[in-house]
Amino acid sequence: MIPDALSHGQFVTVYNFLSLVIAAQLFTAVFLVISLPRILPRYRNAITVAIVVCGIAAYHYFRIFDSFRSAFVTKSVGGTGTYTQAVGESFNEGYRYVDWLLTVPLLLVELVAVLALARKVQSQLLFRLVPAAALMIALGYPGEISGDNTVRGIFGILSTIPFLYILYILFSQLSKSLKNQPIEVRGTLSRLRFLLLLSWGVYPIAYLLPLLNIAGSDAWVYKQVGYSIADIVAKAVYALIIFRVAKMKSYADDREFAAIETSREDAAPAARSSASNTV
Amino acid sequence: MIPDALSHGQFVTVYNFLSLVIAAQLFTAVFLVISLPRILPRYRNAITVAIVVCGIAAYHYFRIFDSFRSAFVTKSVGGTGTYTQAVGESFNEGYRYVDWLLTVPLLLVELVAVLALARKVQSQLLFRLVPAAALMIALGYPGEISGDNTVRGIFGILSTIPFLYILYILFSQLSKSLKNQPIEVRGTLSRLRFLLLLSWGVYPIAYLLPLLNIAGSDAWVYKQVGYSIADIVAKAVYALIIFRVAKMKSYADDREFAAIETSREDAAPAARSSASNTV
Repeated sequence: MIPDALSHGQFVTVYNFLSLVIAAQLFTAVFLVISLPRILPRYRNAITVAIVVCGIAAYHYFRIFDSFRSAFVTKSVGGTGTYTQAVGESFNEGYRYVDWLLTVPLLLVELVAVLALARKVQSQLLFRLVPAAALMIALGYPGEISGDNTVRGIFGILSTIPFLYILYILFSQLSKSLKNQPIEVRGTLSRLRFLLLLSWGVYPIAYLLPLLNIAGSDAWVYKQVGYSIADIVAKAVYALIIFRVAKMKSYADDREFAAIETSREDAAPAARSSASNTV
Repeated sequence: MIPDALSHGQFVTVYNFLSLVIAAQLFTAVFLVISLPRILPRYRNAITVAIVVCGIAAYHYFRIFDSFRSAFVTKSVGGTGTYTQAVGESFNEGYRYVDWLLTVPLLLVELVAVLALARKVQSQLLFRLVPAAALMIALGYPGEISGDNTVRGIFGILSTIPFLYILYILFSQLSKSLKNQPIEVRGTLSRLRFLLLLSWGVYPIAYLLPLLNIAGSDAWVYKQVGYSIADIVAKAVYALIIFRVAKMKSYADDREFAAIETSREDAAPAARSSASNTV
């Protein structure tokens, strides 16, 4: 639930974190749009999806930011007053769920797309991961908007079932596909799953704060900050790692492309070896 | 008609669905703009039209969202008040009709363009479909804005005539053209017509709710949610399927392009078979 009042420090903390997320998502998207020609066409779909994910998140954080600004009014003149709930406005937590409903399935699409698996294997993985991700978010929402801790707990548990299923697929089924990846990206891809587990793990913790009797304005501020950091890691940082994987795979697939893209010092031995091959 | 009051839950539901549509249309358009080079030039007109359709829809949903926000004011302090109609503001349902008047004919242009038919056949189809689609929307509007159920019923029936004509063209005339499509897209294209029928079918149902004596704020909320979901399916999901068809047709038309674009695992056999063909 939204607190009735925030201190100046609490207000500014949430304010600045929400703005940080907008900047992080928007300019990760911009970076990736510009960098798209620097990977081979077969990996561009993964990065296009990453751009869309960061764009959707930026859009929703603009909305969340506006909703937060109009939900609180300051009581005293100057910069150190307290902020109280504005009359007739409430902070809309629903934006986060609309955002996750769209982006979380797409995060899994990114991961599967950058693997560039055979079409059939890819379809099988997505057919399992995407509905599970959507179900996970949809089941969390009734608990989030409910003021009742029992309802929150029940939907929290229900939402955990598809989450565990996603983890099972990522850590058992996907491991088979990892063996076919170029050796230099296997480690990165494997660690990427842990980044995903780590950042996704923040959401249930923030979700469960009210159940742990950690309530009041502090808990609410922690929740907003927690969701903000998790969204940056799970979308922007994640996208940059996916891009790195796409770049490394592009170089492994096509040595000529690698020579053009990389620095002269890196490229020199490759050029020499290809020259010696010709001889 | 617009209800006099909405509960907090009803208000938030409409609010979040309208925002969801903005995100879905806007980022489908972004995805398609970035992905345009990933299909052959001959299919890019279809996708360009799809981008324009999603863009127009995003624009109108920004307007609808703003109109909705200013049409209702909350009565009580805090997050659980009820919302009543604002004095001097009304929700503008007309935006939807302006949107449909522009986008619905274009949705049919998308479908015909991705088929890449002979110029003459294409012109004949569009000459029939586009005016019928515009007429269908134009005839629905007087009924929508009328408070009188008889007027609503009459224009509902008049509007159904061009709708049935469009279905007749899609399911009889277009079937002949489907036979000339590559075998791997025939099924998708055939199912696409059913998606169109299914999503377009939501509009008359929402339109007729007042005639069925389902009135009041619940009916109005269902109508807004129904229109929102139908617009996502009929424009964004539809556009992504059209893009998929364009991609599959591009690969079927040009094996070299397919080898560059698809994964190594998929491309390898194709490259091998084209090499053996050369020998």
